[in-house]
Amino acid sequence: MSDIAPRPTIRLQPSRHKRVQHGHPWVYSNEIHMDNTAKAIPPGSVVRVVTHDGAPLGAATFNPHTLICTRMLARDPEAQVDRGFLAERLRRALDLRERLYGRPFYRLVHAEADGLPALVVDRFGDTVVVQANSAGMDRLTPALLEALDEVLSPAAVVLRNDSPARGLEGLGGEVRVAKGALDGPIRLEENGSIFFADPGAGQKTGWFYDQRDNRAAIAALARGARVIDFYSYNGGFAVQCAKGGAASVVAVDRSEAALANGARAAEANGVAGLCEFRRADAFEELERLAAAGERFGVVIADPPAFVKSKKDLHAGTRAYRKMTRLAASITAPGGFLLVASCSHNVDVPLFAEQVSRGLGDARRSGRILRTGGAAPDHPVHPYLPETAYLKAQVLQLD
Amino acid sequence: MSDIAPRPTIRLQPSRHKRVQHGHPWVYSNEIHMDNTAKAIPPGSVVRVVTHDGAPLGAATFNPHTLICTRMLARDPEAQVDRGFLAERLRRALDLRERLYGRPFYRLVHAEADGLPALVVDRFGDTVVVQANSAGMDRLTPALLEALDEVLSPAAVVLRNDSPARGLEGLGGEVRVAKGALDGPIRLEENGSIFFADPGAGQKTGWFYDQRDNRAAIAALARGARVIDFYSYNGGFAVQCAKGGAASVVAVDRSEAALANGARAAEANGVAGLCEFRRADAFEELERLAAAGERFGVVIADPPAFVKSKKDLHAGTRAYRKMTRLAASITAPGGFLLVASCSHNVDVPLFAEQVSRGLGDARRSGRILRTGGAAPDHPVHPYLPETAYLKAQVLQLD
Repeated sequence: MSDIAPRPTIRLQPSRHKRVQHGHPWVYSNEIHMDNTAKAIPPGSVVRVVTHDGAPLGAATFNPHTLICTRMLARDPEAQVDRGFLAERLRRALDLRERLYGRPFYRLVHAEADGLPALVVDRFGDTVVVQANSAGMDRLTPALLEALDEVLSPAAVVLRNDSPARGLEGLGGEVRVAKGALDGPIRLEENGSIFFADPGAGQKTGWFYDQRDNRAAIAALARGARVIDFYSYNGGFAVQCAKGGAASVVAVDRSEAALANGARAAEANGVAGLCEFRRADAFEELERLAAAGERFGVVIADPPAFVKSKKDLHAGTRAYRKMTRLAASITAPGGFLLVASCSHNVDVPLFAEQVSRGLGDARRSGRILRTGGAAPDHPVHPYLPETAYLKAQVLQLD
Repeated sequence: MSDIAPRPTIRLQPSRHKRVQHGHPWVYSNEIHMDNTAKAIPPGSVVRVVTHDGAPLGAATFNPHTLICTRMLARDPEAQVDRGFLAERLRRALDLRERLYGRPFYRLVHAEADGLPALVVDRFGDTVVVQANSAGMDRLTPALLEALDEVLSPAAVVLRNDSPARGLEGLGGEVRVAKGALDGPIRLEENGSIFFADPGAGQKTGWFYDQRDNRAAIAALARGARVIDFYSYNGGFAVQCAKGGAASVVAVDRSEAALANGARAAEANGVAGLCEFRRADAFEELERLAAAGERFGVVIADPPAFVKSKKDLHAGTRAYRKMTRLAASITAPGGFLLVASCSHNVDVPLFAEQVSRGLGDARRSGRILRTGGAAPDHPVHPYLPETAYLKAQVLQLD
């Protein structure tokens, strides 16, 4: 991956360098001199970034065909961006996770915040799942695979390159086992419980480690409660509530495969007798239970993003409000409600407003006990607060 | 406390009832018919609240002389607001805390979110510390003391009525032992450690339970580290880091009394040999250590509010930025930094901006691992998200 051709230079528009100088990792396409030379740079190339006056700013990956055209990699404009560079970043990310967690199950790399723009790596013990969400990271993938071998020696590496983000970079979708073999769901641990996820076919990388702390928070409130978990996926919330001492747990999802993973997890954790895995649409089931007057001591609703792009904003925010109204209406007095949103376009205040309105619609009062984000293995870049996509509220209702 | 005189009625301006109908607990003085009858209602009276058209909205406490003139207590406009009413709210608050915590050390009542507007009650085992921050709660204090006896039978009750909030309500300041005796610092527990606080003379109620989860989060990262804790007060962060396995801990504060409480806590937890309690001004000590090139594996800066009112906003936000710059400059590469703000007027995005700018000023990069608020014994009313005053960021720096 060493550069034979001289490294191209990207020059910023006048006074557009200040953000980068302070540490911001992105430059937008309207902030650079996008001349014919720049347009001709192959997408994903490593470039030298300079101010309008030619002062060096650093090294970056570059894609002339996308809005976030320049993703900073290092302050040294001549930094070698190779296996060694990537291995050093991976080692730093690994050191942090090993300090955070006793067991090898976590998000190992969370993109910009870990100094590896647009790269996601989730670790499931000996198996790692990689998402390269920019042309730059796509082009660096061979060097990255070598660096992963150097740092972790994983038995299996899955390239889960089918995210919508890749489309914005002009990249195709691909799911491929780059090393070793993957044979159906794999075993993982979270908060002391065992789970099963399918990195080849499940949502995203197969598991959502981001909810780790929110799962622990609600499980700690579940003792003796009748629990229902909507959008239960592989059973993360449901099984942890059962292990937390719930009287009974219903997990609701539309996917047979996800429910099967959840049932297997309940079995592996010795709580199968407490858990029911119910195939249903969440809103239909919420409406049905509300109409039937059912009440639960703990209600969890952690849906997929209702707002996938800005055009969904109106309908999606209304869906969060409606979900909260229905979920509140089946929460017993004194019971607990966890509602979450992973929509990038719905920020914390907007989500909180939908939740409070949903409570008002249900004529329920209560209190917010926790406003949680993603777990610390999903760090946030200090200059990209807007990338903190996950919002979860734990409430107690009267 | 039963009302002999008929309960006065407060009528809202046209269409100003919707927020209350949905569950908002406040009505502002410009939203009601503030006629001579309303103005003559004794501050702190319990009133009946109705819409412009006379439809009932609920019962509230009322103070004609303040902006938040009406604080809702119940949806029933005729609800008896007496010892029994208060005892029921206290019992509900207690049930929640007993579910959250195994030991009797917590904020028992956090105002509106616990259905007891403007009331704060902190519990230190057999001692409770009460702050009545509205004319309504001040007037209800005798009934409240009876209700506390009914629900908790505390050995000692301290009225810590010296908060600035009382001035806005036209109330005087008073610190008084209403029951039992208080003889210097009392013992409390948090996250398995022992501490000492002085409810009669310390800041606020004597202890800041709100940082409980943030203390646990940074203590979990302190193993083997050289730790420094600015504004250490009674040693909450410092001693928990020492118990978390820090190599050494320096606690910096200006108050001899607070440092003495911290030293006593270090002794009680068997970590006195690891801890130094240093009397100094935080900014002066930060400047001195930065100039000396000192580096720590964990740096904590949890100052009192730099922005006490809107007029301090400019200077106060600059102080957070400067504090972050200095604290970052003494954080070792790979080390951890916790910065916090308890300023109501500095919201999460504004605080995050000061932190990122401070990092940029120090030419340090890193990642936000946690954005934490107050612990769940400080719940937030769903319609008062702006009352979530505490913001703490835990970062790792490169």
